[in-house]
Amino acid sequence: MIKAGIVGATGYVGAELVRLLALHPQAELSAVSSVSFEGKPLSEVYPMYRSLCDMECGSPADVIEKSDVVFAALPHGLSQELAAQCAAAGKVMIDMGADFRLKSEEAYHEWYGGTFLDPALHEQAVYGLPEFFRSRIKGKNLIANPGCYTTAVPLALVPSILGGFVEPAGIIADCKSGVTGAGRGLSQNTHYAELNEGFAPYKVTSHRHTPEIEQTLSDLSGQPMKITFVPHLLPVNRGILATCYARLKPGAAEEEIRAAYEAFYRDEPFVRLLPKGAAANIKNVKYSNYCDISLHIDCRAGMLIAVSAIDNMVKGAAGQAIQNMNLVFDLPETTGLLSMPPAF
Amino acid sequence: MIKAGIVGATGYVGAELVRLLALHPQAELSAVSSVSFEGKPLSEVYPMYRSLCDMECGSPADVIEKSDVVFAALPHGLSQELAAQCAAAGKVMIDMGADFRLKSEEAYHEWYGGTFLDPALHEQAVYGLPEFFRSRIKGKNLIANPGCYTTAVPLALVPSILGGFVEPAGIIADCKSGVTGAGRGLSQNTHYAELNEGFAPYKVTSHRHTPEIEQTLSDLSGQPMKITFVPHLLPVNRGILATCYARLKPGAAEEEIRAAYEAFYRDEPFVRLLPKGAAANIKNVKYSNYCDISLHIDCRAGMLIAVSAIDNMVKGAAGQAIQNMNLVFDLPETTGLLSMPPAF
Amino acid sequence: MIKAGIVGATGYVGAELVRLLALHPQAELSAVSSVSFEGKPLSEVYPMYRSLCDMECGSPADVIEKSDVVFAALPHGLSQELAAQCAAAGKVMIDMGADFRLKSEEAYHEWYGGTFLDPALHEQAVYGLPEFFRSRIKGKNLIANPGCYTTAVPLALVPSILGGFVEPAGIIADCKSGVTGAGRGLSQNTHYAELNEGFAPYKVTSHRHTPEIEQTLSDLSGQPMKITFVPHLLPVNRGILATCYARLKPGAAEEEIRAAYEAFYRDEPFVRLLPKGAAANIKNVKYSNYCDISLHIDCRAGMLIAVSAIDNMVKGAAGQAIQNMNLVFDLPETTGLLSMPPAF
Amino acid sequence: MIKAGIVGATGYVGAELVRLLALHPQAELSAVSSVSFEGKPLSEVYPMYRSLCDMECGSPADVIEKSDVVFAALPHGLSQELAAQCAAAGKVMIDMGADFRLKSEEAYHEWYGGTFLDPALHEQAVYGLPEFFRSRIKGKNLIANPGCYTTAVPLALVPSILGGFVEPAGIIADCKSGVTGAGRGLSQNTHYAELNEGFAPYKVTSHRHTPEIEQTLSDLSGQPMKITFVPHLLPVNRGILATCYARLKPGAAEEEIRAAYEAFYRDEPFVRLLPKGAAANIKNVKYSNYCDISLHIDCRAGMLIAVSAIDNMVKGAAGQAIQNMNLVFDLPETTGLLSMPPAF
Repeated sequence: MIKAGIVGATGYVGAELVRLLALHPQAELSAVSSVSFEGKPLSEVYPMYRSLCDMECGSPADVIEKSDVVFAALPHGLSQELAAQCAAAGKVMIDMGADFRLKSEEAYHEWYGGTFLDPALHEQAVYGLPEFFRSRIKGKNLIANPGCYTTAVPLALVPSILGGFVEPAGIIADCKSGVTGAGRGLSQNTHYAELNEGFAPYKVTSHRHTPEIEQTLSDLSGQPMKITFVPHLLPVNRGILATCYARLKPGAAEEEIRAAYEAFYRDEPFVRLLPKGAAANIKNVKYSNYCDISLHIDCRAGMLIAVSAIDNMVKGAAGQAIQNMNLVFDLPETTGLLSMPPAF
Repeated sequence: MIKAGIVGATGYVGAELVRLLALHPQAELSAVSSVSFEGKPLSEVYPMYRSLCDMECGSPADVIEKSDVVFAALPHGLSQELAAQCAAAGKVMIDMGADFRLKSEEAYHEWYGGTFLDPALHEQAVYGLPEFFRSRIKGKNLIANPGCYTTAVPLALVPSILGGFVEPAGIIADCKSGVTGAGRGLSQNTHYAELNEGFAPYKVTSHRHTPEIEQTLSDLSGQPMKITFVPHLLPVNRGILATCYARLKPGAAEEEIRAAYEAFYRDEPFVRLLPKGAAANIKNVKYSNYCDISLHIDCRAGMLIAVSAIDNMVKGAAGQAIQNMNLVFDLPETTGLLSMPPAF
Repeated sequence: MIKAGIVGATGYVGAELVRLLALHPQAELSAVSSVSFEGKPLSEVYPMYRSLCDMECGSPADVIEKSDVVFAALPHGLSQELAAQCAAAGKVMIDMGADFRLKSEEAYHEWYGGTFLDPALHEQAVYGLPEFFRSRIKGKNLIANPGCYTTAVPLALVPSILGGFVEPAGIIADCKSGVTGAGRGLSQNTHYAELNEGFAPYKVTSHRHTPEIEQTLSDLSGQPMKITFVPHLLPVNRGILATCYARLKPGAAEEEIRAAYEAFYRDEPFVRLLPKGAAANIKNVKYSNYCDISLHIDCRAGMLIAVSAIDNMVKGAAGQAIQNMNLVFDLPETTGLLSMPPAF
Repeated sequence: MIKAGIVGATGYVGAELVRLLALHPQAELSAVSSVSFEGKPLSEVYPMYRSLCDMECGSPADVIEKSDVVFAALPHGLSQELAAQCAAAGKVMIDMGADFRLKSEEAYHEWYGGTFLDPALHEQAVYGLPEFFRSRIKGKNLIANPGCYTTAVPLALVPSILGGFVEPAGIIADCKSGVTGAGRGLSQNTHYAELNEGFAPYKVTSHRHTPEIEQTLSDLSGQPMKITFVPHLLPVNRGILATCYARLKPGAAEEEIRAAYEAFYRDEPFVRLLPKGAAANIKNVKYSNYCDISLHIDCRAGMLIAVSAIDNMVKGAAGQAIQNMNLVFDLPETTGLLSMPPAF
């Protein structure tokens, strides 16, 4: 059994990791830590876990010591030091935060305001989006787990970019996220009475996932790419829907595009390409690690519309982290991750 | 007092007209009709109206006879005959359906499958989007009240198109609508357990509001325009958010664009241009006739993002119809329409 | 025009008063104050009010000076001093808080922990539930506006208690409230992701509205009454549903009970007794000052079930305050309060 | 592996059984049937099951033939014939409907309008509420799986009744259910725009679960009991909260009552008695087979308030059915049923 520990277990990502690890046949929760709730059982913060996970929150050092793999669910900026400690202790670390996602220190500084404390660690870190970078992940010790939007958008777009069907300039990702993406912390715009029956974009043109999406698209396409990314906040708990728009190159035909997606994702266990006429819906991937993708061609305007749906807390966070853990520990990639999305 | 009648009063648009007319100081509900509930009081269908509107549903002929203005809230295709009857009786008709919205019979046939029964009537009909066509509406007898998306999208885009700030090709309208837009009729995708916690696009590239939006943009810009329009269904009751994307022309500057919108909407009582940094939210226009617009410039990608929010049942349907009634009857345009959006 | 000011205008009750006063033909908002937002326009806190109420938040003294009537929407405990200032300035005060609701200082101390600073003021204060105490309210200067549950429960129960149809002991009020009752302040249990899809009782046997409900029932029935009161938090914005249970006395017949309610509420403009077979629903009173009541007899178990529905922010707070203002200023009681509940 | 088939698999209970069976390590889905969708894959009705359960819907005979255990998720009245067929084929049947729940044919006739087609079958049927009737269930072939309310209410009340702490007369169960309890069929009151932001009781004093709850309480207490049962419809997908009220007998002390519940449920794997001060919440049992119970004593009014929360589709339907299957097939009762309720 893999001993899996969580630093920052009382945030939403940590809580979801606890739930998913309990479904994993070859991993067990070894230790949890929390700054705010040290010394208290996890089930005091999450009463739904009563009698199922009453483990007491300890310190990060405690988690490192007791674990083979450490999931770091920390606010951005706090993972670098922890990564150094994990490396020193010879433990695998899967970072749920952004500290190791951007390869460019300049971009990291621009969007997050920090610096790379130990460039050697950043060299070792790999970006954990298995559908694109599987071979880089296997056997590594430091995984930068992608953000939620940064998983959904490339999954929708990459086959059409690599297939040369669309113009690489002017791509738009109009995304909508459930509120758990904003975390457990309180704020006026996640106050029930204010979000309920509301809907709006936020951080238009300034969301930190922008450079991360661009990095993935640029890395895969071999050319620098810029996109327009607009996230919106949905009055639902879970899910991201990414409606992506790319101008079709002359001659790009629907059948070819669809065939390219089918070929690209044929062996991917967590990507479901929907049949013509269907549309991706966050409802259909809830509580699961699946990504549903639907393709739509606007012939009148010459536009590809590729829509992806994921559960932001699973494929967009904790589930993908376990998928990465499986890769690192050489388990079948789907281990513990195949539960069905509930019908309601 | 203007005598206002409603044909098709038991649908959602009809019900909203009843509510708004009750707030109007110079109009009164004269008669209502309903095919499904003829002979029954409106408050049997809408128990919230008990003791406030117990008027019995009669026949369309009854409504025409008792009214100065007839609001026709009928399924698409049934308004043409009624319009002929209203014309014969010398009554004003404001059609909430699509029969008179498209000027081109060819487009009407392509998107709705019908024909123009009496071309002369179509000649007389004017398209009732007051912010753009106010002068055409005054004093007319047959008003084609716009659809919801077809109000929100042009309000967001027109000043930047007319100002020459954006490329007319490749414009995208990614829209999200509350569920009342789908009406009172039952369907699996508006069943509570299925829409709740769900979110998806629908009728991608095939929604009937596409040619109507294009007609407005083409009419105003003086050139044929095509857009990509993708509607989504939100798990909320009311509201449309239109996130519109248009590529900036070289040299287009944010200050100029903002100034152009300010000038364009300065005297519009129902359009609120939000200050820089704010984002339009459907919550802020609920139950009101306001349209909030926020502007965002993506300098990195050269894209204008114009976001508009309306209440689909008010500015997107019943409220705009009353605004048109006010214009037709030469009342101040805001009469009866200035109630504040509730804070929650 | 009555000059109406609000102390504590940026809380939810204050915001709702602003909305309702704008609908009142004989009152106008004269001034607003807020501790947290002094010097800022109200529309900065409530962007839906932009261009409709951009009044700047001032000080309480400012409000008193500019107003004929001061609505005090303050946290419990802060109203007593303000009341003294209003009295000194000869202004009417309608207190939305609890400081003047309980006649017994002992009960006030037990449930709220405070004391009566000026007993003379408490002598003058009248409890503003018009359906029961209308004659006491007219012309008074200090009105204690009831709480939300304390309006809904007595309206459901009083006719059956006064009619002698039910046992006064063992009465149960199982109540469910929308989340706006918890106010604008942030808390974990009103965080969207935690309340959404959740439902639970809170403050079971310890909610501060208990003695207030008992005071009303005891006052009207002339005997000391105790009830069991259990509130629950609903994942909706507005509304209170009170499902009240009282054991039927031997011989109590449904027709008699129904007739007693009809007689009791015949002339009440805001109480709608539903026909047999219908059930009160919070949906049907939203945004309105109406109270819907449905009666159900469980013959098998000998139980009266009386269900009332109000909008907690209107009849349960701001609307009732305006109803009281109308009484104090000798206006028709329904002035400004007759807008229809929307159908959706 | 137990071969488990479902007759009526396209209803909500059937769909939930499919999801839960997929988590069961010793059972596998053998066949499904559906009247409305015969010949179509289950994933056409439930697109979230795509690639996970594309099994085609066949006939009931097909299901019986291929299965060791048949779950019958049929409208009330259709199970009796199927039970005879299962008996003839020597297959276990677990009936999700009401046909075999009531022991009294008279009561069945009164509440459901039907008769017992084969009294011998009714003799063999056992009522499958394991926490109370475990010993009767083991090894049986025909299990009447309880309804949702009829699971939640007795779990909340029985220890206090058997312990003699409360009066058996005048007990009230004020229950609130998520909308999946109403099933997949369309109706006006489960139309999104009408249930959203609404809340009301339904079938007051006439819900068919009344005699079933009374049967359980009478059976266990050894005396005929009648209760007042009022269900309400919540705008959430899943969950039942039962707030139960029973008058305390003189001398009943909180500590004793709590100790009695602790003793009663000490070895029950699916019942979680919450500590003093906590309140049961449907959120904390979602998607799980747990029943949370909180106890509250109203000393002022002499009332016990026992609150239980279950997921209506799991412990209130499909999960309990699998718990019964485990008992029948002599597996550990918790097999396949221990997944954690998600935190959000």
